[in-house]
Amino acid sequence: MELLILEERVDYDGSAIGSHWAYRKFGVLGDSLVVFRGKCDVKIEEMVDIEDLRAGREIKSDDMVHYIVEVFDLVNALFASTLQKLFIAKLCEVLGEYGVRTTRRGDDIYVNGRKLSVSIATVSPVSVKIHIGINVEAKGVPEGVSAIGLREIGIDDVKGFMEKTGRALVGEFEKVRKDSLKVRWAR
Amino acid sequence: MELLILEERVDYDGSAIGSHWAYRKFGVLGDSLVVFRGKCDVKIEEMVDIEDLRAGREIKSDDMVHYIVEVFDLVNALFASTLQKLFIAKLCEVLGEYGVRTTRRGDDIYVNGRKLSVSIATVSPVSVKIHIGINVEAKGVPEGVSAIGLREIGIDDVKGFMEKTGRALVGEFEKVRKDSLKVRWAR
Amino acid sequence: MELLILEERVDYDGSAIGSHWAYRKFGVLGDSLVVFRGKCDVKIEEMVDIEDLRAGREIKSDDMVHYIVEVFDLVNALFASTLQKLFIAKLCEVLGEYGVRTTRRGDDIYVNGRKLSVSIATVSPVSVKIHIGINVEAKGVPEGVSAIGLREIGIDDVKGFMEKTGRALVGEFEKVRKDSLKVRWAR
Amino acid sequence: MELLILEERVDYDGSAIGSHWAYRKFGVLGDSLVVFRGKCDVKIEEMVDIEDLRAGREIKSDDMVHYIVEVFDLVNALFASTLQKLFIAKLCEVLGEYGVRTTRRGDDIYVNGRKLSVSIATVSPVSVKIHIGINVEAKGVPEGVSAIGLREIGIDDVKGFMEKTGRALVGEFEKVRKDSLKVRWAR
Amino acid sequence: MELLILEERVDYDGSAIGSHWAYRKFGVLGDSLVVFRGKCDVKIEEMVDIEDLRAGREIKSDDMVHYIVEVFDLVNALFASTLQKLFIAKLCEVLGEYGVRTTRRGDDIYVNGRKLSVSIATVSPVSVKIHIGINVEAKGVPEGVSAIGLREIGIDDVKGFMEKTGRALVGEFEKVRKDSLKVRWAR
Amino acid sequence: MELLILEERVDYDGSAIGSHWAYRKFGVLGDSLVVFRGKCDVKIEEMVDIEDLRAGREIKSDDMVHYIVEVFDLVNALFASTLQKLFIAKLCEVLGEYGVRTTRRGDDIYVNGRKLSVSIATVSPVSVKIHIGINVEAKGVPEGVSAIGLREIGIDDVKGFMEKTGRALVGEFEKVRKDSLKVRWAR
Repeated sequence: MELLILEERVDYDGSAIGSHWAYRKFGVLGDSLVVFRGKCDVKIEEMVDIEDLRAGREIKSDDMVHYIVEVFDLVNALFASTLQKLFIAKLCEVLGEYGVRTTRRGDDIYVNGRKLSVSIATVSPVSVKIHIGINVEAKGVPEGVSAIGLREIGIDDVKGFMEKTGRALVGEFEKVRKDSLKVRWAR
Repeated sequence: MELLILEERVDYDGSAIGSHWAYRKFGVLGDSLVVFRGKCDVKIEEMVDIEDLRAGREIKSDDMVHYIVEVFDLVNALFASTLQKLFIAKLCEVLGEYGVRTTRRGDDIYVNGRKLSVSIATVSPVSVKIHIGINVEAKGVPEGVSAIGLREIGIDDVKGFMEKTGRALVGEFEKVRKDSLKVRWAR
Repeated sequence: MELLILEERVDYDGSAIGSHWAYRKFGVLGDSLVVFRGKCDVKIEEMVDIEDLRAGREIKSDDMVHYIVEVFDLVNALFASTLQKLFIAKLCEVLGEYGVRTTRRGDDIYVNGRKLSVSIATVSPVSVKIHIGINVEAKGVPEGVSAIGLREIGIDDVKGFMEKTGRALVGEFEKVRKDSLKVRWAR
Repeated sequence: MELLILEERVDYDGSAIGSHWAYRKFGVLGDSLVVFRGKCDVKIEEMVDIEDLRAGREIKSDDMVHYIVEVFDLVNALFASTLQKLFIAKLCEVLGEYGVRTTRRGDDIYVNGRKLSVSIATVSPVSVKIHIGINVEAKGVPEGVSAIGLREIGIDDVKGFMEKTGRALVGEFEKVRKDSLKVRWAR
Repeated sequence: MELLILEERVDYDGSAIGSHWAYRKFGVLGDSLVVFRGKCDVKIEEMVDIEDLRAGREIKSDDMVHYIVEVFDLVNALFASTLQKLFIAKLCEVLGEYGVRTTRRGDDIYVNGRKLSVSIATVSPVSVKIHIGINVEAKGVPEGVSAIGLREIGIDDVKGFMEKTGRALVGEFEKVRKDSLKVRWAR
Repeated sequence: MELLILEERVDYDGSAIGSHWAYRKFGVLGDSLVVFRGKCDVKIEEMVDIEDLRAGREIKSDDMVHYIVEVFDLVNALFASTLQKLFIAKLCEVLGEYGVRTTRRGDDIYVNGRKLSVSIATVSPVSVKIHIGINVEAKGVPEGVSAIGLREIGIDDVKGFMEKTGRALVGEFEKVRKDSLKVRWAR
């Protein structure tokens, strides 16, 4: 899994969930994790979570760290959902290294009962795609959502956080893949 | 995923990694998690981890809580390895609720630099199979392994731990499955 | 497989063949069978059967009982086509319980040489989708088609028929699934 | 799907459920249906149905028509179970053409409340395998099973029955396959 | 795999890469190879090769022999790419029979350092799709591409070449399929 | 795909066709090509080609260059057979660079009508496995087989041949994989 951490700001409108986004935009071929920072405002036509669509929820925030994952090895929604939860759990573990105590509920991260993240996992016809967004500041979020951001939990070096978490997620995936190759099949 | 927590002691010799073990032994059909307590001493011919086989490692402990997972939805080694890591991460989160600070390295749980667990994930021709073992006491482990057990980290109600973790893992899986069904596919 | 029998009339224009239709419209998550009553008039752009498209055939009827099946367990066109035929055969068996003698040709049901049903089975990128329509009355069908309806074969309690057949199809699928889990693999 | 109807008697001991049996024994390559007549007495080590194993049931009969199906297109237990039920339903339809009124319960055929058939469907690592056995005479069946045979329902031309049903099953499969190829995918 | 060699000229604009093209246009059901002759000018919105899209490359030629392959047996991009390379290698072998010495680089055929062909392989949600185009004359190709055509390497009987290569590719695929069915699985 | 060229002689008895052979024996994890030199004498119980088994053929030669391929990305017999033919075609292309004119018939290489190679491709429950053997000298081959070896076609630097072909096959596979990742899916 190749890691690309973007220097420039990129706003997330949901279109990055499409297949081959990392290759189209940045020439990154194959399994990839692209980390970048920017606004979040998902257009209705790009919304993937039908639960949110049904509830008329908005997905937005003024400033987020975004993670776009694409995996081509296995195209399956159950795998997508499993990998998403593992990546969220890993992010919580890294936050723990920063001294932040988190609560994970599926694919949501909470700190002190306030929501730090948004996430979705799905499949394209050729890949698994995951988006995770972590608030830098709890601004511009939908009304009624009690949010929190990295700044408010004492993580001011956003660039350092992007690098640390990016490496952690890629390392996790490489360990997952390596372990899948070293076991004999069972009867 | 059906949860079965065994009252009786059952020793783990590796044969439970075979397909349909839960159905053959206990009549539990379909996706299942069986939790039980007993010795661990994996016979060479049942060893699944080729890395351990190559290194001549033993997998044993005098008293462990065992988790045997079988999932039929998707037969794939990468998925098996991903689900295993998620379950290990979940166990660490539950240990956190007990006030125990853990470090996860892939599928291993460490407390104070000492190893609390063993685990393996693989596929049979019809299912994904995962074994996780957590030391109740750090006795009977292979020489040279610095181990730790539940007793030493203050968890004496082993039965309560089995129930709490069993429910947590099944809950995690059901959330994973539910989320995989509620998203539209991406272009 | 969840069964939903709609009280209200819903016309079928072909769009219900899209993925997640039952979840989008009715909040039914996962494998589902939605049974409803309404007109049938499939728009060209929603036609799935290329044979019909090539022949310029119309798919329409003034009053039908519709069955929309979605299965997420296995995304494969051969499986879709097999399940469709099994469901059609099951409907014939239920009609037999009503004392109606049917002839099944693949996915078509005939009574006295007249066509009672239309059906299509396909895949979306995440699921298997099946539509079956059974004429309530043989009105509004394409010219040249010799059709027959439930009324003409003496089944006037359409609501009862919807319930009886709905339960029968769901029961069949649950039996299929259960049996797939209870067998060991063969060499 | 190639149809092979054996002239010679062959007893069924369960080993024919293994992969490539038709090719090993008769040189029939690819998807196949082999129909033959002989005793049925499944050895414990060849029993595939774990439910039967757990219940200590025997699978035997003195004289049966056997159908061994192998399909390589899709290796999946849910598909195996679906195709099995469709084939059983088709056999009931052919029996109907003989004037025999049957009741199908999943993969079992009953006539007048007595059991006419046994069946199992599973997967090998490379194929789907199905066995169906139909009693010619209700002799030599396990104690406590109320059985019936072709002779008792007036079908004396066993060879004709083997040919008629063999062609019917192969025709059904070819229709299933053809239909799976003529539909566009759905959104 | 059914072989269809078109008498009439058909220009290739990229739309033939869509699923079921051979069935929609010519009624050819299932695995197929359609060979035809015509211009090549792929519209941007039909371009499948993202590398070309990123580089702003054009895919065009005034006169080409086109091969459109569709395989439904296995929907997977790695398989698509493997089959494409095998088909290109086979075309080189046939060219060798004409006495033409070729160099294959992946999916490109060169003669005397000049490019004879274009090709792409991908998946639709239901099939593998491959396009191969071979210049009849090196005219109308993008600027900067050093091209060569059949005429320039002494192959003037284009119709004969279409038939010979069409049969060779279909023969290769049938051999591939047959061999896949005659081997037992390995431990 | 990792390339390992063994210095030591290793005889091939068929057991190397089992899954994870390269990892068990040499610690090579994941997709691999192991090239080595040694006798060939396949034990009956390791024979994978049922056609050979049925014909009672022997697979043996006194001195061969062996290629053992294992690919974990996609477990499918049609893919195995396709990749095998591509690798055989590639070997023919490399032989062409040595100035040797070959004829490929599926997975067999002939020089002047004499057989240079043996090969088999199959699947294990977790991987695709291919064996290719090329005679160094045409000695010890089964009676009735007209064989030829590298020595007789002027290739005396067997080690150089092993390295050149090893790199060529791995390069081919990497190109196949890379191309599979750079194309958007088709409608």
